[in-house]
Amino acid sequence: MRPPETFTLDALSAFHAAGGSPVAVADTALSRIAAWADPALFLTRVEPHAVRARAAALAAEGPQGRPLYGVPFVVKDNIDCAGLPTTAGCPDYAYTPAEDAPVVARLLKAGAILLGKVNLDQFATGLNGTRSPHGTPRNALLPSHVPGGSSSGSATAVAAGIAAFSLGTDTAGSGRVPAMANNIVGLKPSLGLIPSRGMVPACRSLDTVSIFALTVADAAAVLAVAAGPDAADPYSRPAPPFWRAAPAPQPAWRLAAPLPAQLSFDTPGDAALYEAALGRAQALGASLARVDIAPFLAIARRLYDGAWVAERTAALREFLTARPESVHPVTRTILEAGLDKRTVDAWEDFHAAAEARRLARALFAGTDALLLPTAPGLPSLATLAAEPVAANSRLGTYTNFVNICDLAALAIPAGFTAAGLPAGLTLIGPAFSEARLAGLGAALHATAGLPLGALGTPTPPPPVPPTLAADELPLLAIGAHMSGLPLNPQLLRHGGRFLRAATTAPHYRLHDLGNRPGMARVASGGIAIAGEIWALPATSLGPFLAEIPPPLGFGRVTLSDGSTPLGFLAEAAALADAPDISAHGGWRAYLAAKDQA
Amino acid sequence: MRPPETFTLDALSAFHAAGGSPVAVADTALSRIAAWADPALFLTRVEPHAVRARAAALAAEGPQGRPLYGVPFVVKDNIDCAGLPTTAGCPDYAYTPAEDAPVVARLLKAGAILLGKVNLDQFATGLNGTRSPHGTPRNALLPSHVPGGSSSGSATAVAAGIAAFSLGTDTAGSGRVPAMANNIVGLKPSLGLIPSRGMVPACRSLDTVSIFALTVADAAAVLAVAAGPDAADPYSRPAPPFWRAAPAPQPAWRLAAPLPAQLSFDTPGDAALYEAALGRAQALGASLARVDIAPFLAIARRLYDGAWVAERTAALREFLTARPESVHPVTRTILEAGLDKRTVDAWEDFHAAAEARRLARALFAGTDALLLPTAPGLPSLATLAAEPVAANSRLGTYTNFVNICDLAALAIPAGFTAAGLPAGLTLIGPAFSEARLAGLGAALHATAGLPLGALGTPTPPPPVPPTLAADELPLLAIGAHMSGLPLNPQLLRHGGRFLRAATTAPHYRLHDLGNRPGMARVASGGIAIAGEIWALPATSLGPFLAEIPPPLGFGRVTLSDGSTPLGFLAEAAALADAPDISAHGGWRAYLAAKDQA
Repeated sequence: MRPPETFTLDALSAFHAAGGSPVAVADTALSRIAAWADPALFLTRVEPHAVRARAAALAAEGPQGRPLYGVPFVVKDNIDCAGLPTTAGCPDYAYTPAEDAPVVARLLKAGAILLGKVNLDQFATGLNGTRSPHGTPRNALLPSHVPGGSSSGSATAVAAGIAAFSLGTDTAGSGRVPAMANNIVGLKPSLGLIPSRGMVPACRSLDTVSIFALTVADAAAVLAVAAGPDAADPYSRPAPPFWRAAPAPQPAWRLAAPLPAQLSFDTPGDAALYEAALGRAQALGASLARVDIAPFLAIARRLYDGAWVAERTAALREFLTARPESVHPVTRTILEAGLDKRTVDAWEDFHAAAEARRLARALFAGTDALLLPTAPGLPSLATLAAEPVAANSRLGTYTNFVNICDLAALAIPAGFTAAGLPAGLTLIGPAFSEARLAGLGAALHATAGLPLGALGTPTPPPPVPPTLAADELPLLAIGAHMSGLPLNPQLLRHGGRFLRAATTAPHYRLHDLGNRPGMARVASGGIAIAGEIWALPATSLGPFLAEIPPPLGFGRVTLSDGSTPLGFLAEAAALADAPDISAHGGWRAYLAAKDQA
Repeated sequence: MRPPETFTLDALSAFHAAGGSPVAVADTALSRIAAWADPALFLTRVEPHAVRARAAALAAEGPQGRPLYGVPFVVKDNIDCAGLPTTAGCPDYAYTPAEDAPVVARLLKAGAILLGKVNLDQFATGLNGTRSPHGTPRNALLPSHVPGGSSSGSATAVAAGIAAFSLGTDTAGSGRVPAMANNIVGLKPSLGLIPSRGMVPACRSLDTVSIFALTVADAAAVLAVAAGPDAADPYSRPAPPFWRAAPAPQPAWRLAAPLPAQLSFDTPGDAALYEAALGRAQALGASLARVDIAPFLAIARRLYDGAWVAERTAALREFLTARPESVHPVTRTILEAGLDKRTVDAWEDFHAAAEARRLARALFAGTDALLLPTAPGLPSLATLAAEPVAANSRLGTYTNFVNICDLAALAIPAGFTAAGLPAGLTLIGPAFSEARLAGLGAALHATAGLPLGALGTPTPPPPVPPTLAADELPLLAIGAHMSGLPLNPQLLRHGGRFLRAATTAPHYRLHDLGNRPGMARVASGGIAIAGEIWALPATSLGPFLAEIPPPLGFGRVTLSDGSTPLGFLAEAAALADAPDISAHGGWRAYLAAKDQA
């Protein structure tokens, strides 16, 4: 059996479920590295025999509990992988960490297979991909153009079909611009959602680890593994209680786009693709408001002119002082400019940033996402060489403000201009809005009718609704609260939504308590009970439960699929004298039998 | 009818409820100002006829919907009151705002009566009260000693019985040290809880408006009016959904105190008062852990040596450049030092601050409050004059780190040394922990047996535990969620408030499920189980329940008084193999027995 042509998580999961081995996937990935033959892609490879050994070890352990079982990935070379050098694209800076960065450790624990460390703009400073002493990774679709940066290799490896996903980093757009340049998805999570410990700092207060993947669903699935607090990381933040990574569909999105005069593009083709995307979003049911983004564009300009350039300098100060000639000349110029900045000026930047965050809060109070171009256009290698700073700055037009404003962002492909240039869209939302961005992003990506990355596979349809929204809890109803039964209006009144029919694991007994059933788990002799899964707003559960009389209560019920939603459970002591009706398999069947009797 | 001798909110409310007029209260306040005769107290008074007119207008409108009806207050002269000059203690800086600061507007809307603007250390820079061109407000108890600063006048006016409460500000301790110096209560709220718009900035990113009052209950009642988001203030932050100002009592406080070697005091009397307070807290049921506060003391030193001094400079830069001779010489030296700081160094301060906040999060994961001396001791005016910078710095030993670490603090009186010097205690907790700090603070203040401020009235007993609010549900905790036990923070995080101890009806059995108990109703042979009734916001119950793993769930539990609150119930099937520990009568007794075994 051959591994899938395209390394989406669904395809890999189906391959493994059908008996395919992670070793075959590893072999395919290794042969694709060879066939791709880009000497500027990998800075350090995991030795092929070690990749195969890792895959074989996974195969021996099996997929259970490993959501990324046998999924090949690469890591930007400014994130620690135990035993491999971390260079940040600067050979003289290199060190070999003894430990994986927490994010890498989480991915490996989930069964992913590391192929190696990939190229980047040195010290993650740049958005174009050419600022590396190791050469420029080849744009996966258009070798004449820049691959984007600073996460250049992370993006091209995914677009080329070598890795199913990759880790990048994003401080000013490094996780988004390369996604655009290579027709893939780039997810820049909320500050502190993925630990940034074990990453070479750019601006520590603004840095995030980011995720590249072929599809939005895949990026969200990787985020679900990568996200979570790290007690040892001062910049780690806990997500709100009901945060989820999974795309949250929504029938009526509230979108915002900039005032037309605030948009600039490199070519009319780029502009047309953006306007077409606004139309596609509206066709999906989104409303569209035009908003003034001038304050965000203004704070963006401070990222490289103001206090934060000195944050980059501070992170590399010792090295920059000791070995200035080891630093890429463009990067050195940028970093040395940070030495002279004065704190009294920095505070004006910080207060301006606080004001920009205030304006962002106001914007997102009534908006699900701001939809922007990822960049005005993609420069050729020649253009970039002619204007190494100006062309780079232009790439950050729509990305630089996002981290300063404490926002989350999802870059998706927009299509190709007539000249064959890829264009991108970025959905921006408040911190911890990843599920909403992914819900809209998956739908919008699907309507673009594009192939994935540099591969032939079409973009898959978005995940099927109805799934549970981020602020809902699943609840198993097994009695009079089920659809059409007398207490169902009570569920509806509390905002409940029917999701699907479901059956418990065979561990329960059902009793007739009069006008309603009582279910309890038993140590032995249990059977499966039929019910319905409803989505209930988390905030409604308390008021709903307060209306449920004893001996009924709520607890975790184990379903036949192993999941454990909340469900109605009765106190066992109250069931002793209540008729056992388990043989009917459920309350609805019992009512039907009573009717016939 | 004569207004009360002591202006507590309870006494004023009782006076008004009995038919007393706010005009009589205003007249009393005005005559006390005259009798107090401190020319250094007020920088601008509201004209007596205007105070009386305001009181008369209130009397005409009545107390309905005005929680601060007829309550006289004063405002530190770095907070805007419409039509009165704001000087920040620097005559040449003065401007007259057209609008009240939002916090002042809220207090006036609640019925409070403004008496005027009071003296401060210029630009709120200082902790002693002598850095004002208008002289030093007289310490209300001990004229030979400093009144504390920078909110000097705010504290002495309350201690003298002129104002029932006052507004100060606090960046480094200015809302706490003057409370200690004048034997009153000083509440420094969480950053962003009270809008700081309309306040002359010291360090904008660390500034808070603060509250002085005679009792903890009064400070909390004023906070309830003053707190709340301000959409126009970039540093405003919404409190968590279930934040409350009202003191939250709790039977088992988890307190932390510094390692003994980390404590320093001016006199053995100060040390003895602190040790006595630790004993009083333990007598109230608090557990006491000794913790290393070295990282907090270290970050405190950066407040005046590092980046934040330049934040003060930035706020006053234009004025400092244009009119340097208008600034108090000590203040000028401090502010001008900020001009030369480099941003690349500032980032080291910021990353150190992030690390200190991380350590604070870790500390408060298992601690309700850190109990510190407010200051090592109170210097005399002569000592302060001899060492204007060193003696001032010493006053900030235990206060400087609090705002940098994003913490809340409540300063309460500790007592008097044999030499008659007042000493203070500060309870410090995480952001938005005001209710808990007030609960413990009120109890601890009551056990000190002190008069209020410079007045003869004894400290009142702590507030009686609140009853259930309309949007809350009672919940019976019987295991690790009870006060002081490992899962209690989970209840607190969801807005839970301890109400009272309770016992079930004798229908239950308790089992040991490892680190938590499981309780189930039994048809016969049940006994009564001890627990605690907590109030939980109805909307929190779902999110809380979603975090409870099986076999635990919620259902109705019958108490010994016949009521049936929600409570933790375990699935009976899971209890078969779990040891029956009912004989202990409750989880807490069982844990104690295990400890002894």
